[in-house]
Amino acid sequence: MSSNTTSADVQWKGYAVTDTEKWDELKVIDFEPKKFEDYDIDIKIEYCGVCGSDVHTVTGGWEGVMLPVIPGHEITGRVVRVGPKVTEFKVGDRAGVGAQVCSCFKCVPCNTDNENYCLKMVSTYNAKYPNGDIAQGGYSTAIRAHERFVFPIPNELNLEQASPMLCAGLTVYSPLVRNGAGPGKRVGIVGIGGLGHFAIQFAKALGAEVIAFSHSPEKKDDAMKLGADEFVVTGEGFAKDMQGKVDLIICTADVSEGIPLADLLSTLSVNGRCIMVAIPDNSLPPLHSLQLIGNGAFLGGSHIGSKKEALAMLQLAAEKGVESYIEMLPMKDAGKALKGVKDNSVRYRYVLKVDIDI
Amino acid sequence: MSSNTTSADVQWKGYAVTDTEKWDELKVIDFEPKKFEDYDIDIKIEYCGVCGSDVHTVTGGWEGVMLPVIPGHEITGRVVRVGPKVTEFKVGDRAGVGAQVCSCFKCVPCNTDNENYCLKMVSTYNAKYPNGDIAQGGYSTAIRAHERFVFPIPNELNLEQASPMLCAGLTVYSPLVRNGAGPGKRVGIVGIGGLGHFAIQFAKALGAEVIAFSHSPEKKDDAMKLGADEFVVTGEGFAKDMQGKVDLIICTADVSEGIPLADLLSTLSVNGRCIMVAIPDNSLPPLHSLQLIGNGAFLGGSHIGSKKEALAMLQLAAEKGVESYIEMLPMKDAGKALKGVKDNSVRYRYVLKVDIDI
Repeated sequence: MSSNTTSADVQWKGYAVTDTEKWDELKVIDFEPKKFEDYDIDIKIEYCGVCGSDVHTVTGGWEGVMLPVIPGHEITGRVVRVGPKVTEFKVGDRAGVGAQVCSCFKCVPCNTDNENYCLKMVSTYNAKYPNGDIAQGGYSTAIRAHERFVFPIPNELNLEQASPMLCAGLTVYSPLVRNGAGPGKRVGIVGIGGLGHFAIQFAKALGAEVIAFSHSPEKKDDAMKLGADEFVVTGEGFAKDMQGKVDLIICTADVSEGIPLADLLSTLSVNGRCIMVAIPDNSLPPLHSLQLIGNGAFLGGSHIGSKKEALAMLQLAAEKGVESYIEMLPMKDAGKALKGVKDNSVRYRYVLKVDIDI
Repeated sequence: MSSNTTSADVQWKGYAVTDTEKWDELKVIDFEPKKFEDYDIDIKIEYCGVCGSDVHTVTGGWEGVMLPVIPGHEITGRVVRVGPKVTEFKVGDRAGVGAQVCSCFKCVPCNTDNENYCLKMVSTYNAKYPNGDIAQGGYSTAIRAHERFVFPIPNELNLEQASPMLCAGLTVYSPLVRNGAGPGKRVGIVGIGGLGHFAIQFAKALGAEVIAFSHSPEKKDDAMKLGADEFVVTGEGFAKDMQGKVDLIICTADVSEGIPLADLLSTLSVNGRCIMVAIPDNSLPPLHSLQLIGNGAFLGGSHIGSKKEALAMLQLAAEKGVESYIEMLPMKDAGKALKGVKDNSVRYRYVLKVDIDI
């Protein structure tokens, strides 16, 4: 029994990976959430999306997994308890949690709507709070988080539709708005998957012209349906006729060596930007200074988004009818979903429906 | 006799490299400039700086050298002839030419003060004009260029002082101003050499707080004299205490594997930028997405600067007393100067004084 169990006020259940070699064999375990504090909110989970991060974590692709781990950070449900200082939510509200559950609240990033870059951020799962409490994710019956990291879900969105937006959607929305996606801009979206299918829709909703890049010709119909103005297969020499024509690229492809990085950079207009939002296990392809200098290009990275951006994204999704393409599974099929994400067969996001009682 | 010699109206002399294996043994050769056109200006050269690009080119470190090559693109002298449509210069004016002598004048970059990113740009040497005329550089008696690529030298600046600013100075000034160097910003300058010694001065002249990064502790005195507020030796673990503290980095270090890229990126504030301005022969160190995503950082490149920026830079240099640290040599010692740049012993720029007659 760990030293902090004495502070536990509840026991919840979740589907946990207990061995990275058997990452698709999840088992229901009991767990204790963080100690309840004044700004905390408990949400009874109804749905949780399955993100590429879940796969990287449970397979050990990313270093530092703490077992057992309950994955999941695209969480929606209803508020069942609020701390005495909570002002934004009341019991019964529809609410969600994304990939972050805490930050220091004191640093420059925290005070400039950049809490998603707080150096002391606590991720939603596979993470520890400063007091040692373990954060477990949304393949579970409930989650507890500080209200800053809880998002109200607009009435226009179903909870299952909203779930994948809270990580996949926000991860592409933030770099789109921070890098000027809008009318008059040509935005390239690389990779038509969980993130990419949102990126096309949000770029379009923001008013940009959208070019979808994929190595899979069969994704053209989906890309055009999602709102792309143009579809480009990233085969040999694809960038030749596109030099200097794209203002911003959001690269969602979750591969390393497979990204045609130099070609993509060559398509950028002067001082254009290519933003990586996936975190493949391995390094990116080697880059030569010349590939950045020729057009004054930028290669950037972006990590989820701020609460301010999450609220704006959900509002835009509600207004413009941005749609999550989901395949729903009962939560007991989490292993099947993880496999579908790993082998890239999902179109485009699994959402798990909770099937165990709190 | 080549097909375009019939159009030659003059013959000039220059110090040429004729063999990349003997890159420090330059020989005086005769050469013909491009065909004289209506917007062209002839400058009788007095001084030419020695740039790292000269070394990369003549050693064959960069691919595609066309021999014989007369290097040099930090050129100052006096106008001796102007075409009938030239409006900005008259015979006798003090003038200079940097690393570019032509562009297409028609594309979006050319029409948005980004002619330094024109896809059809003609470099000052080791380059061909669209009509096949060869561009030779400033280790020579004279140069011919379209007036858009000729810069008037303010009276406050000596020609020998102005020379190195036309490539080294502009190459750092442009990314400084394009990326917001100014009051309230912390700007890191990596590498205290030909480019870096200008970068420190220009960043300071623009009002930024300046942190000089060098792997050579013995450069501290120079860095502080140049205006740095802080000096950091880039040894093991140097970035540990600097996480998130630098808004913009200009990396002038002309090495590949030796750049502590991941550490430098970690010092950036949220959405901060690290701009590479050197073009080492080899690829940059491998980069992992996580190194960009953790703080939403950008790795960028920048190529010289526009004429608009060149004029603003020369004005700022004149107003703020930015000083070129130069070692003057007669032009016949060009080989010695190239060696001094290659082995990094120059402090901080060689300027060659013309010693042959036009």
